[in-house]
Amino acid sequence: MKRFAVILAGCGHKDGAEIHEAVSLLLSIDQHGCEYQCFAPSRQQADVIDHATGKAMKEERNVMVEAARIARGNILPIEQFKAEDYDALFFSGGFGAAKNLCDYAFKGAAMEVKPDVARAILEMNEAGKPIGAMCIAPVMLARLIPDVCVTLGAEGTEVAEHVREWGANHVQTENGDVCADNEKRVFTTPAYMLNATIKDVYDGAYNMVEAVIECLDVVK
Amino acid sequence: MKRFAVILAGCGHKDGAEIHEAVSLLLSIDQHGCEYQCFAPSRQQADVIDHATGKAMKEERNVMVEAARIARGNILPIEQFKAEDYDALFFSGGFGAAKNLCDYAFKGAAMEVKPDVARAILEMNEAGKPIGAMCIAPVMLARLIPDVCVTLGAEGTEVAEHVREWGANHVQTENGDVCADNEKRVFTTPAYMLNATIKDVYDGAYNMVEAVIECLDVVK
Repeated sequence: MKRFAVILAGCGHKDGAEIHEAVSLLLSIDQHGCEYQCFAPSRQQADVIDHATGKAMKEERNVMVEAARIARGNILPIEQFKAEDYDALFFSGGFGAAKNLCDYAFKGAAMEVKPDVARAILEMNEAGKPIGAMCIAPVMLARLIPDVCVTLGAEGTEVAEHVREWGANHVQTENGDVCADNEKRVFTTPAYMLNATIKDVYDGAYNMVEAVIECLDVVK
Repeated sequence: MKRFAVILAGCGHKDGAEIHEAVSLLLSIDQHGCEYQCFAPSRQQADVIDHATGKAMKEERNVMVEAARIARGNILPIEQFKAEDYDALFFSGGFGAAKNLCDYAFKGAAMEVKPDVARAILEMNEAGKPIGAMCIAPVMLARLIPDVCVTLGAEGTEVAEHVREWGANHVQTENGDVCADNEKRVFTTPAYMLNATIKDVYDGAYNMVEAVIECLDVVK
């Protein structure tokens, strides 16, 4: 049975992991007969947003503790992630990916991936193992993996330009599509970067998980 | 296009809406080409639980504000729910349903449904409109609708006995099954009341939504 690691960035699209994306990802992994283990950084979120009003709240929340809501408690701190234990690594999107796993939401093109997250990505990539990412999360792969090809939905956007500034490539996609970089073994889907509904997000997650599994099976 | 109301009880299975169930429900509604509107009571949660450790946290959170994380901000206070606006009403499960929508988690057989939630259920039921509920949420229907037939998963459990004490009926189901009470127009699925994985939960949600749509189509 294939074992996949999923790194979550909290719980809720404005300050954490986008919930529809994260659940669609876990569901798709289970539907393909594979196992998942969730991870998250155990540190304070960059911010806490009231999701009913969109305004900042005067609260502090821990990324891993909140992500545990999606993982039903079955979550490990990211320090315990080892590339050798997993066949592939996945990221859902949401502002949490751009605030808690890297600082793209605050620094744009000057962003850096947090060292603990960068370690996980680079260990998988150097081991030749596939990585899948949804929505805004592909910016981390574009920042770290030279010449990789990813999608962030539409062309002509600021984020597509940033991807090129970092020396990576951007491909336009539609709802449910997967951008497959078979050489770098990176698989991305636009999810809520586009004007999507939850079924589009699920279709993209399902197709991305399928593409990763096919890539693993080809190697065997 | 059919319009469905979904009442959420927070965000996270230990103190709010079970996230896999709520997302599976919204996804299933969208996959069937129907629309959903989420509602929640705007009041303090009964408690806040650290989902990584399972321990109570010294925090206060608002049920609707947290549920907005699942609804991506598109949520209304339950007072604004009108039965005439919707073709059916749905509930996901999680401890939030048993703590924030009624007090079953604290009072067992002596439980009462919160008045705002009871109003929504009874208005729909009196209008002859279908109601669907997952996991522990069917206890509210069993408490309020005389002689209704629901499932809470296995037989021989305390909760199945409580259902009978209230003058309702309990039917044993397996993963993905729907208990259809076509006379009362109540459709329930066990979800995480059983030893299930996320794909089982999704299957149950999908089948429950399908059963509600079939019931609506029969009447036409």
